[in-house]
Amino acid sequence: MPKLEAYSKNLDYSYALGIYPAMNLINARPECVRRLLIASGAEGSDGVSKLRAACRAAGVREEPADKALSRIARKDNCFAALVFEKYACALKDSAAHVVLCQVSDAGNLGSILRTCLGFGVKDVAIIRPCVDVFDPHAVRASMGAFFHLNVRVYDSFDDYRAEFPSRPLYPFMLGGAVAIQDAPREKKFSLVFGNEQSGLPDAFQDMGTPVYIPQSEKIDSLNLAAAVAVGVFAFVK
Amino acid sequence: MPKLEAYSKNLDYSYALGIYPAMNLINARPECVRRLLIASGAEGSDGVSKLRAACRAAGVREEPADKALSRIARKDNCFAALVFEKYACALKDSAAHVVLCQVSDAGNLGSILRTCLGFGVKDVAIIRPCVDVFDPHAVRASMGAFFHLNVRVYDSFDDYRAEFPSRPLYPFMLGGAVAIQDAPREKKFSLVFGNEQSGLPDAFQDMGTPVYIPQSEKIDSLNLAAAVAVGVFAFVK
Repeated sequence: MPKLEAYSKNLDYSYALGIYPAMNLINARPECVRRLLIASGAEGSDGVSKLRAACRAAGVREEPADKALSRIARKDNCFAALVFEKYACALKDSAAHVVLCQVSDAGNLGSILRTCLGFGVKDVAIIRPCVDVFDPHAVRASMGAFFHLNVRVYDSFDDYRAEFPSRPLYPFMLGGAVAIQDAPREKKFSLVFGNEQSGLPDAFQDMGTPVYIPQSEKIDSLNLAAAVAVGVFAFVK
Repeated sequence: MPKLEAYSKNLDYSYALGIYPAMNLINARPECVRRLLIASGAEGSDGVSKLRAACRAAGVREEPADKALSRIARKDNCFAALVFEKYACALKDSAAHVVLCQVSDAGNLGSILRTCLGFGVKDVAIIRPCVDVFDPHAVRASMGAFFHLNVRVYDSFDDYRAEFPSRPLYPFMLGGAVAIQDAPREKKFSLVFGNEQSGLPDAFQDMGTPVYIPQSEKIDSLNLAAAVAVGVFAFVK
């Protein structure tokens, strides 16, 4: 394997930075892990010991990598990281979906993925243009939830619809017709969210059942990650 | 007024950076505004024009301030900002409260304040040690919701309880006794959240009605801002 580079979206590998995301990766997708990187002096800590044991059991090679870690993690402190191959997922048609149209912030995406896993929604569609889902910052902000989910990126919402033509759609829009408390409940549904700045285009008013989260006019909108948390909670509780 | 400094918590003034936060400030608390700062070339934009008009109506002096803006906003682009005096708020005993124990991240705090205003909870107690609530990054992340709220900082949770001894308390804890869907509903309550890393100390198990947000064991916990959003929604909807 050549010298590890600072992450860029053109690489065919990425990094799970930090103990908690790395443990989630080695547990959920051991077959994708290429290497364990450890900072010198960190070998004995409790979290690192567990990660090393899990990697040994999976046959993953470890190496001291102070320089690589500081190059990869930049200003964030990071005592351990896994290098992993990027992989592709398929979504399950029988399950609930969250669909994120043009999410642009890696921290937001990570927080949303953590929320989805927390509420048992394991299938997430992401519509381009969007943040790189393998960005180590997104992976880390998800606390490794990313690895337990099926996350699939589509070139357009139409591509997503073509693959799943018969699902009940719930676009989240400030001008939605139905408050989320009153939306009908099914087992199989797609909750659709727009991007941080502009929300969903008006065309979504004509798709499925547009829903809204009742909120004060004193705010422009909720933060996207907050809206997804409230929306998913209301649908799965 | 002396030369404007990069923000530090020791100053008796702070900054509302960006059009939207600044408009909220001049509308909600015009008496605290000291000065309008504008980047050269930005005077004619729509947002800046409205902000200038609001400032003129409130008798606030404006000045071109490219250097001060780049010093204050650093890497963030910022075409306009208001300088404002820090102020103190009192909480209303008749209203719902959110209590944040030792919140440490300015972005999280801002997002939470935006959510609180969105769901009509206008009284927020913050327990030290905590992030500086006047930090311009927190104010900006709140999109200016900060200025519409009563935010009060307490040295300890005991100090908060001494001021408001008779309120129903709902500490949010992973080991809470009651799921939030099933918590009793009152008009006057205090929802209490712990910090990002460690949540609330165990002692809160014996205060009021500890509640939990049902979530998968696959995640350690929800992101704090997501938990507050779901919690407040469940109590006010």
